[in-house]
Amino acid sequence: MDFLEQSFNVHFDYRVYFTSNIFDAFNMDFNSFLKERSQPSTVQKILFVIDEGVLNTHTELTHQIRSYFNNDLPVSLVKDFMVIPGGEEAKNSSRNFDLIIEAIDKNGIDRHSYVAAIGGGSVLDLAGYASAVAHRGIKHIRIPTTVLSQNDSGVGVKNGINYKGKKNFIGTFAPPVAVFNDDRFLATLSERDWRAGIAEAIKVGLIKDAGFYHWIEQNADQLIDRDRGTMNILIRQCAALHLQHIASGDPFELGSSRPLDFGHWSAHKLEQLSEFKVLHGEAVAMGILLDTFYSALSGLLPMQKAERIIQLFIKLGFEITNPLLDVQDENSEILKGLQEFREHLGGRLTVMLLSDIGIGEEVHDLDVALLKKASEKLDEYQYEMTK
Amino acid sequence: MDFLEQSFNVHFDYRVYFTSNIFDAFNMDFNSFLKERSQPSTVQKILFVIDEGVLNTHTELTHQIRSYFNNDLPVSLVKDFMVIPGGEEAKNSSRNFDLIIEAIDKNGIDRHSYVAAIGGGSVLDLAGYASAVAHRGIKHIRIPTTVLSQNDSGVGVKNGINYKGKKNFIGTFAPPVAVFNDDRFLATLSERDWRAGIAEAIKVGLIKDAGFYHWIEQNADQLIDRDRGTMNILIRQCAALHLQHIASGDPFELGSSRPLDFGHWSAHKLEQLSEFKVLHGEAVAMGILLDTFYSALSGLLPMQKAERIIQLFIKLGFEITNPLLDVQDENSEILKGLQEFREHLGGRLTVMLLSDIGIGEEVHDLDVALLKKASEKLDEYQYEMTK
Repeated sequence: MDFLEQSFNVHFDYRVYFTSNIFDAFNMDFNSFLKERSQPSTVQKILFVIDEGVLNTHTELTHQIRSYFNNDLPVSLVKDFMVIPGGEEAKNSSRNFDLIIEAIDKNGIDRHSYVAAIGGGSVLDLAGYASAVAHRGIKHIRIPTTVLSQNDSGVGVKNGINYKGKKNFIGTFAPPVAVFNDDRFLATLSERDWRAGIAEAIKVGLIKDAGFYHWIEQNADQLIDRDRGTMNILIRQCAALHLQHIASGDPFELGSSRPLDFGHWSAHKLEQLSEFKVLHGEAVAMGILLDTFYSALSGLLPMQKAERIIQLFIKLGFEITNPLLDVQDENSEILKGLQEFREHLGGRLTVMLLSDIGIGEEVHDLDVALLKKASEKLDEYQYEMTK
Repeated sequence: MDFLEQSFNVHFDYRVYFTSNIFDAFNMDFNSFLKERSQPSTVQKILFVIDEGVLNTHTELTHQIRSYFNNDLPVSLVKDFMVIPGGEEAKNSSRNFDLIIEAIDKNGIDRHSYVAAIGGGSVLDLAGYASAVAHRGIKHIRIPTTVLSQNDSGVGVKNGINYKGKKNFIGTFAPPVAVFNDDRFLATLSERDWRAGIAEAIKVGLIKDAGFYHWIEQNADQLIDRDRGTMNILIRQCAALHLQHIASGDPFELGSSRPLDFGHWSAHKLEQLSEFKVLHGEAVAMGILLDTFYSALSGLLPMQKAERIIQLFIKLGFEITNPLLDVQDENSEILKGLQEFREHLGGRLTVMLLSDIGIGEEVHDLDVALLKKASEKLDEYQYEMTK
């Protein structure tokens, strides 16, 4: 066999900044970032893609950004902001993708220019994907505005849009050049969005860090009371665990390594079946509970630990199940999520279960009869709650 | 400033195999490759995307592939082949991209399965792009069938499709898992395709490797006579220089480093202006000559070397200019290629010129009056040739 061997490493780095009021005239974080990376004899531009929901609660934002860029900044602001209705709808078709590509072309955004996205996970996923493929990769800055995007999706290396209802069927692994977590945006979140983001933090605690899980239990009251300081700690720790998992593993998932997933096979399917009326974090909470009780019923996890976990979700005000999550038999719709999950990750089916709080354990198939029992358990709890 | 720092390397490797009759029952190259990478307890599939032009001259190909996969292979062949009309049209809209995504979805091709593309550069670019973004990256195998794709585009890490006539406006950097250069496909190439591919080899010689350039001069007669052995040497050396350039530089062009470009700013524009009637390699030949005479007229390169270079292209039967390449004044259409080239690479304009055969030299702007003179020079040669 005659061949030439190609082999190389590509280095990636970026920072996740924690800040308040990022476009306040006196906040120099964003300003310094752009200055440090300015390129003499190059005109760098920046195009903002903004979640409409964020603009509705922060009506001053565009004005503030314009003023901020009136300061002596080495980057030229593209006059028109792209405003995208947020939520899953943003990434449910290729229409918004096409609009961003068009704006990149029209405004002459090149590989040394920026596309900055401000919004929830869906708008970030969408803008990240468009940035990753235009000119084979424009520098992308993420400014996540929800708990979920600040502690989870927004700090990682993935982007994507849905295809025929399949979550993130199309996308890339493309690290941002920076992430700015601004806690001002948390104050105006709806109660649902505030709560939903906590599910991913509980997930990471459950499979990776018992201490973090216990900290969440101990601070549940403050989280319910919407204490921003407590939420900042939760977000920082969850983001740190995420970054660590990515860097220490297989960042672009080229091998068989697993992302930081637990409860996600059913969560993704539930979102789709509910036509995305169930938020990602809400679906993740239910998915976690389904797989937690499955872990307990299969003898992997002591039942009392499963009960302890469900109490935390109940205390935080999560719905713990949904009729669409019910497993009746092997033809139940939700079980299609297993096959789609396998296809999306590729290779053999691998599902994370729990053997203890803080310790995930992978299995390669699930027993439908036990899943049915687990889903009935959730129904019983739900019935008790609403009685 | 409060931040978390993320930093990691991603390793990529792949082989470029040189083989003959890849799907012959006794050729074990492809077979061994798949076996070495087989994953127990995983069903791996392979979807073939084939250039229609290749099927027209190799009518036995699909039958041969089916037989090949009847052997004891650990990968299951997707029954339907996707056939895509080749040439630039393949990547000129998103239609074919959509079709491949649909086929990936319909056939349940996952991240551990393969999309193998057989064809010229356009079909490979198209299939590579679709593979790179479906499920955030399916394993992609390239089987380039033209001189150009075997020595240049097919062995590298880029893919892409055009957007509003702009070459490769949308795409990614995504290394294939393997490239198989099969010289059987060279025998059936049209004269234009055979010749066009030599332009990129001359380009690499001119800017990187004087010895290789001289070797091409010395072997021009054999190349004209379509000697396959000579062409194999040319392809192998050109591919090797390409791989080296990628690995030793900035493979994903994250910084300001330059791809192996010479004569390309005008070549890309010329292709577009001619509605892709001028082939990429043909346009590259003219682009090289324009910038070679520009180098000479600006005093960088001795004029006699420019004359030597044009003689090689003439001997090989290349057209040396085209009315669409003419530079009249700063409003000439072809000059828009400079701006688009700058935008595509990003940052400051950087154009490669020659200071000697084998030595490229970068400059950051071009003088329109000199370009006009260079383009007139080409017209004079063309006039002499056709007289």
